[in-house]
Amino acid sequence: MVEAAETVRDVAHLGRVELLTPEPAKSLWYFRDVLGMELVHEEGASAYLRGYGDYAAATLKLSAARQAGPGRISWRAVSPQALERRARAIERAGLGQGWSEGEFGRGRAYRFRDPDGHLMDIYYDEQRYRAPDHLRSTLKNLPMKYTGRGAAVRRIDHLALLAKEVAPNRRFLQQELGFGLREQVLFERGTVEIGSWLSSNLLHHQVAYVKDVHAASGRLHHFSLWVDNREDVLRAADILTENGVFIEAGPSKHNNSQGFYLYSYEPGGNRVEVYSGSYLVLAPDWEPVTWNEEERGTGVYWGGALPESFLKYGTPDVAASNVPAQSVSVFDPY
Amino acid sequence: MVEAAETVRDVAHLGRVELLTPEPAKSLWYFRDVLGMELVHEEGASAYLRGYGDYAAATLKLSAARQAGPGRISWRAVSPQALERRARAIERAGLGQGWSEGEFGRGRAYRFRDPDGHLMDIYYDEQRYRAPDHLRSTLKNLPMKYTGRGAAVRRIDHLALLAKEVAPNRRFLQQELGFGLREQVLFERGTVEIGSWLSSNLLHHQVAYVKDVHAASGRLHHFSLWVDNREDVLRAADILTENGVFIEAGPSKHNNSQGFYLYSYEPGGNRVEVYSGSYLVLAPDWEPVTWNEEERGTGVYWGGALPESFLKYGTPDVAASNVPAQSVSVFDPY
Amino acid sequence: MVEAAETVRDVAHLGRVELLTPEPAKSLWYFRDVLGMELVHEEGASAYLRGYGDYAAATLKLSAARQAGPGRISWRAVSPQALERRARAIERAGLGQGWSEGEFGRGRAYRFRDPDGHLMDIYYDEQRYRAPDHLRSTLKNLPMKYTGRGAAVRRIDHLALLAKEVAPNRRFLQQELGFGLREQVLFERGTVEIGSWLSSNLLHHQVAYVKDVHAASGRLHHFSLWVDNREDVLRAADILTENGVFIEAGPSKHNNSQGFYLYSYEPGGNRVEVYSGSYLVLAPDWEPVTWNEEERGTGVYWGGALPESFLKYGTPDVAASNVPAQSVSVFDPY
Amino acid sequence: MVEAAETVRDVAHLGRVELLTPEPAKSLWYFRDVLGMELVHEEGASAYLRGYGDYAAATLKLSAARQAGPGRISWRAVSPQALERRARAIERAGLGQGWSEGEFGRGRAYRFRDPDGHLMDIYYDEQRYRAPDHLRSTLKNLPMKYTGRGAAVRRIDHLALLAKEVAPNRRFLQQELGFGLREQVLFERGTVEIGSWLSSNLLHHQVAYVKDVHAASGRLHHFSLWVDNREDVLRAADILTENGVFIEAGPSKHNNSQGFYLYSYEPGGNRVEVYSGSYLVLAPDWEPVTWNEEERGTGVYWGGALPESFLKYGTPDVAASNVPAQSVSVFDPY
Repeated sequence: MVEAAETVRDVAHLGRVELLTPEPAKSLWYFRDVLGMELVHEEGASAYLRGYGDYAAATLKLSAARQAGPGRISWRAVSPQALERRARAIERAGLGQGWSEGEFGRGRAYRFRDPDGHLMDIYYDEQRYRAPDHLRSTLKNLPMKYTGRGAAVRRIDHLALLAKEVAPNRRFLQQELGFGLREQVLFERGTVEIGSWLSSNLLHHQVAYVKDVHAASGRLHHFSLWVDNREDVLRAADILTENGVFIEAGPSKHNNSQGFYLYSYEPGGNRVEVYSGSYLVLAPDWEPVTWNEEERGTGVYWGGALPESFLKYGTPDVAASNVPAQSVSVFDPY
Repeated sequence: MVEAAETVRDVAHLGRVELLTPEPAKSLWYFRDVLGMELVHEEGASAYLRGYGDYAAATLKLSAARQAGPGRISWRAVSPQALERRARAIERAGLGQGWSEGEFGRGRAYRFRDPDGHLMDIYYDEQRYRAPDHLRSTLKNLPMKYTGRGAAVRRIDHLALLAKEVAPNRRFLQQELGFGLREQVLFERGTVEIGSWLSSNLLHHQVAYVKDVHAASGRLHHFSLWVDNREDVLRAADILTENGVFIEAGPSKHNNSQGFYLYSYEPGGNRVEVYSGSYLVLAPDWEPVTWNEEERGTGVYWGGALPESFLKYGTPDVAASNVPAQSVSVFDPY
Repeated sequence: MVEAAETVRDVAHLGRVELLTPEPAKSLWYFRDVLGMELVHEEGASAYLRGYGDYAAATLKLSAARQAGPGRISWRAVSPQALERRARAIERAGLGQGWSEGEFGRGRAYRFRDPDGHLMDIYYDEQRYRAPDHLRSTLKNLPMKYTGRGAAVRRIDHLALLAKEVAPNRRFLQQELGFGLREQVLFERGTVEIGSWLSSNLLHHQVAYVKDVHAASGRLHHFSLWVDNREDVLRAADILTENGVFIEAGPSKHNNSQGFYLYSYEPGGNRVEVYSGSYLVLAPDWEPVTWNEEERGTGVYWGGALPESFLKYGTPDVAASNVPAQSVSVFDPY
Repeated sequence: MVEAAETVRDVAHLGRVELLTPEPAKSLWYFRDVLGMELVHEEGASAYLRGYGDYAAATLKLSAARQAGPGRISWRAVSPQALERRARAIERAGLGQGWSEGEFGRGRAYRFRDPDGHLMDIYYDEQRYRAPDHLRSTLKNLPMKYTGRGAAVRRIDHLALLAKEVAPNRRFLQQELGFGLREQVLFERGTVEIGSWLSSNLLHHQVAYVKDVHAASGRLHHFSLWVDNREDVLRAADILTENGVFIEAGPSKHNNSQGFYLYSYEPGGNRVEVYSGSYLVLAPDWEPVTWNEEERGTGVYWGGALPESFLKYGTPDVAASNVPAQSVSVFDPY
């Protein structure tokens, strides 16, 4: 009997997410004043923010751009050696773009695109956040004071990417980055991969790939931020509504992932989730859970169906674009 | 420059905890009817239970014994290879006791004691829970129906062990099992290690070692079970009180770990925590947080001080015992 | 200047609700095992239940009947004198049906119908609940042990009645029973009264009248039970779903009343709400809040629209009935 | 048989509380920035604030003074007629001080002292709050936008007063103002009245009188503000601690009143409670619940005992005062 090869465990976690926004000032207001993140740095057309519980200096980068959409998505390696291993593997897979010097708060990174074209990189060196006096917490193990401002999100959690085809991207993360597959939505007797949820650590998922109904590439479905209790999500709904932010769905509970969700659109157009619940995957031999058309239903465990827009809208917004869907992926801001 | 060796990542998670109880029927009532765990198996003097969110067949083993206290503590390895590696490392460290055949729901395990004498083992093969029809959840990714009975704890979380000396045990877990150090309480200018919190995964801690004020060995401070929201902990306090269970402390919030705690004594005498909050440790290069006498204070972030008993009482109960403290560790039920 | 007459304050609160069910055994399971009420008495075709926080012996009466729907709705007067005053006023209004002897847990009552034909009575003498030993709370001011069973509803709260015309019923409660008007939905420039929310005490509303889209009479929209926190409503949604109970809408938040709602159908067919939030009306000179078509929107503050069924379905179910809509009110079980 | 006289129902609710503070700027910071109240008016040495759910223009008046303590406590009558009735009753009881012209947001009031010397008044005319544009809520039935700032208290709830003797004050509120007695702590076989909780409406209590261990007069034990969920109280504890505010006790649950409490000292020295839970008293014939030494215990339902300071400290602070305890009541700021 041949024993299965051991799983690669080289990616620590989702380190930073860049969002592109045509409304940078309003998007900053949304993330800082409404969701309660802290602005730590501004440079060029970008603003760097963090949740009060994030240990890194910055975890969200907001960049002014012509269109909303995902910018570069960054993964932190577990060690310098792991970083080298993953860079080599990605290069071998033909998706590498070479090393870049560090940007704010981070050391050098190896850049690449996933098969669908989403921009990504992987890095190890990271600047730990040191709070200035007025933001120092009375809790020694909290990187920053809990200000309680707005929805007071604790940390970044995950993102969901739209892709023309799910499988190649899912396999890329599994094979080259060592992600584990947690759940899948498979239609037509398992032959059509509608969505796959993956993670490299205990979090249920750090990234999901979902089939783009517009057959476009490189788009974002949503970016998700964590709060500790379901009640915090309900409170966020009150705060978003009082601030005139459009709520697309929730608060309610998904069936797959068990996530307790609340989706709104930040003023730049990107869908953002305030999120709690779900479950940790402790099993090293986790068997992916699969959902067919009927089981998946409308994607909710209880409450009303998800709206049509939830299935169709992403950023960049294909419908609003003057360019054909198949070329919307050409929005590299660099 | 010599690069640091990479961290061992061979232990997946705390797999099973055995508790000894001189009141097996009452302890079973406590865990099943009051905390809401499910009884899945009984064999000999032992009952096997699980939380509704635990993926394994059983995570708590209650064994009738002369005295309350910890039985065998089991860790699950991430792979068969990892199991072999850890077994060899422990053997080399001179603390191994050899392989045992599997018990209910698990394959073979390598047995050992930590330096303080607590019984432990490590295993890989585990029986996934398959719910009978009446306990099947309407959520495909939930191993078992959420019955909502009693405090409805979701899964086992961690345990805190009392030890004559903290350092040897902490080092053993770091060196032979690859645990990371998360927080420490150090008194007398860092020379006296009062407590250390460790984990092998994202959970803040899966085990804590705390200096035993009675200088006894092999004792348990508490065993902890997870619920998803702070409100669930408050609800548990109401339920425990209505059922006449003694609450020693909480619900309240610790400073180290940020855990939202509720400590009661199960009828056998062991201290049990219903727990939520805390934080995940995502950083691969986490710097342990240390607390001195003043910073630690009474161990709470807000609310009243922890009672004297919290610092002194453990199981087996040295004070109640007729045998000298230094020999209370001789309670091996096997 | 003539000073306004003082408001009558003769009705203390909603005292008991009778629901008719063609599935008495299943309905009993729903209220006792799923919602967690306590069964205190059975007599004839009726079962009497209570929430753990209700001070009265029984607050819900479940009666076997051919069709689901509302039975008799009972109001408690603030004093014997108030009871006499209200009986005389109702008699003068031509809606009285005379005195009846008490039923389980209550003294004599004055029976009447509201203008739409819903059966009601008013009484004063009430048997306070005395818990048997096994249900005695450890809290001296709690009438009954908090068992934590199921959704563990605390007490009955209010009901919503469908009526062919809202105004006559609203005026009847205001003029003959001293209820205050809290909120109204008025369509077509205020000329069509879609719904009115009324109360005789600080609770936002104890009864709502909503225009029946089927132009039927005497029907029930929903009966509502209180839990203390929004988190309890979320937990109820999990419990209902695990028990296979159909959830029609929620958990979510209404705009009018600010109620945090969860609507399911008990097995007999009546719509039942688990409810928290809302607000107390402390102002003695409260100005009713009115909502037009646009302001009212879909009746939710955030989240998805209420489903079509929420606007159309009531009990008895006109659509399912073989009898013409205008005669469904003839279901008096007495 | 002679029927009992009907209960007077002339007092609608606690309308406004004035607190005296030797640190007006810091106290304003506490109530506005930490507890999240809104500052609506400043006049002379006073600042007027409100909770986002209070319907009146202002419900808290902060007045600069030499010492912390209670200022004037205001009750709103249910009608102009009720106001006249109560003024006459108080005058007959010999405690009246005559009519005063209205102050900010209110019409004329009849002034009096309770037997222990606390300053009070009763009024009817009240200015409803009209939010400026930037504070208008997206909920038509909410007087003001939910800003979510700080602990975001919803409305004022009640206060607890220290008194040399409890009984005369309790009887005064019962007889002259129509309050109902809800709970009592009676020591020494019922002969010593330690505390009485009273209300004129469904709220469990709007005022409590507690025996002053210093045998002083006219002091305040605490002033209490409402939040809707227990989770909000926990969140308030985090916010208070991050802002360096001393928490004396809680979050935890009282046995009498079932209140879920959190006590801190505002910078001026007054004890302030953030509060949720408790229960509504719907019964018109409520039987007061009494607690003896043993039943009352330490005043908590679960968790640690209330600290010594909770029993001894009040404002003005007798211990800190240079004047004899028996004369501290002479702090009328008018």
